[in-house]
Amino acid sequence: MSSNDTLARLAEVIESRRGQDPDKSYVARLFSKGTDAILKKVGEEATEVVMAAKDGGGAALVGEVADLWFHTMVALAHFNLKPADVLAELERREGLSGLEEFALRKARERESAEAQAAAKGSSRE
Amino acid sequence: MSSNDTLARLAEVIESRRGQDPDKSYVARLFSKGTDAILKKVGEEATEVVMAAKDGGGAALVGEVADLWFHTMVALAHFNLKPADVLAELERREGLSGLEEFALRKARERESAEAQAAAKGSSRE
Amino acid sequence: MSSNDTLARLAEVIESRRGQDPDKSYVARLFSKGTDAILKKVGEEATEVVMAAKDGGGAALVGEVADLWFHTMVALAHFNLKPADVLAELERREGLSGLEEFALRKARERESAEAQAAAKGSSRE
Amino acid sequence: MSSNDTLARLAEVIESRRGQDPDKSYVARLFSKGTDAILKKVGEEATEVVMAAKDGGGAALVGEVADLWFHTMVALAHFNLKPADVLAELERREGLSGLEEFALRKARERESAEAQAAAKGSSRE
Repeated sequence: MSSNDTLARLAEVIESRRGQDPDKSYVARLFSKGTDAILKKVGEEATEVVMAAKDGGGAALVGEVADLWFHTMVALAHFNLKPADVLAELERREGLSGLEEFALRKARERESAEAQAAAKGSSRE
Repeated sequence: MSSNDTLARLAEVIESRRGQDPDKSYVARLFSKGTDAILKKVGEEATEVVMAAKDGGGAALVGEVADLWFHTMVALAHFNLKPADVLAELERREGLSGLEEFALRKARERESAEAQAAAKGSSRE
Repeated sequence: MSSNDTLARLAEVIESRRGQDPDKSYVARLFSKGTDAILKKVGEEATEVVMAAKDGGGAALVGEVADLWFHTMVALAHFNLKPADVLAELERREGLSGLEEFALRKARERESAEAQAAAKGSSRE
Repeated sequence: MSSNDTLARLAEVIESRRGQDPDKSYVARLFSKGTDAILKKVGEEATEVVMAAKDGGGAALVGEVADLWFHTMVALAHFNLKPADVLAELERREGLSGLEEFALRKARERESAEAQAAAKGSSRE
């Protein structure tokens, strides 16, 4: 099964949990708790990704990234968005070339702002 | 292209940056900086997902989730892993049912541990 | 100086940067960039605390916790709050006893909610 | 009571929990769970600081910063470090001037590295 299909199907299952009994479904429970509970899980799972990577990656890292992506998908659904929107955004950036172009542009903007700041700041010391 | 392979294709592009000139490619630069630089971006982008959600979601949230997924894919590549591994893990959990089963089992384990703790703890106060 | 007032004095210095030239002061620059830039640093420094701890603690951990506390103090100042407010809150919780009481109470509330959920949920499988 | 005394006293209470019954003390429980459980709380509380700030600050932000500082102190204790070490580091940086000097120096180093990168990178487009 394609990656996009996997995410689309998972999104459908997440969507189907909306309004269900929070005592029977983990996702329904998250939806019922609301925005902050969902985002707290995103922050928590991101921390677990960092720890699993520091432990050397492997299957543990795969599991934590799965948890992180899953909870970001719950966040997307909570705001009526879909993984397809994210994939389209990644496509829109024209694969990595676009992404890199964007990141380098941002780095250069930051750099020129900081170069200005440093130029002025250096007169202070 | 088929929506099919967005992540797989993106992973290939990321992989192709390995060992390239860090001054010409954002991803090559991240690879060359190493684990902590990559993980710092994961933590940073997770924070930006949280902030975009608190601002109401929408296109900004889509963009931040794209950034977060992208940087987790760089982390996966850094540890010789692929998004397909993550998708297989999500599949393995049998769609959401499996995930919820897992989450509920974890919640119950935590709950029974805490029930024990509380039972003993309550004798303290 | 008395060890007494490290945070209070630091808070005064931070406060004194408000409205200064963003090109000459790192803190003035953060203030001028606004809420999200400050919070992004909080998320970033928290990630660095996690990584330094996974690397074994030591002086690196001390440095990262210093960075994290420093940036939370900029966040406090941005919202017209002071470290003294945080310390008063820690005091209010009556040292650790109060904190633990609070944490155990929260754990028990969560536990009883989850016990209920699990009781109902288990009838599903 | 001075800020340093508050933190020192709190550190003593945290220290006193080491090796105690994990079922009676929240901190003893965290110590017994180990590094990852403690760091997970740091990541979680940092996320809650971000959310409370996005909600407008106030007492909620004070409470979340208290939680974050508290859990970083548990992390310090876990690695045999003290808040006094962090305060000394903040002092060592000579109040904010030193911190800003440091941050500006780092910003300039990054900037000159990125200026180099951008100079080379721009020849690519």
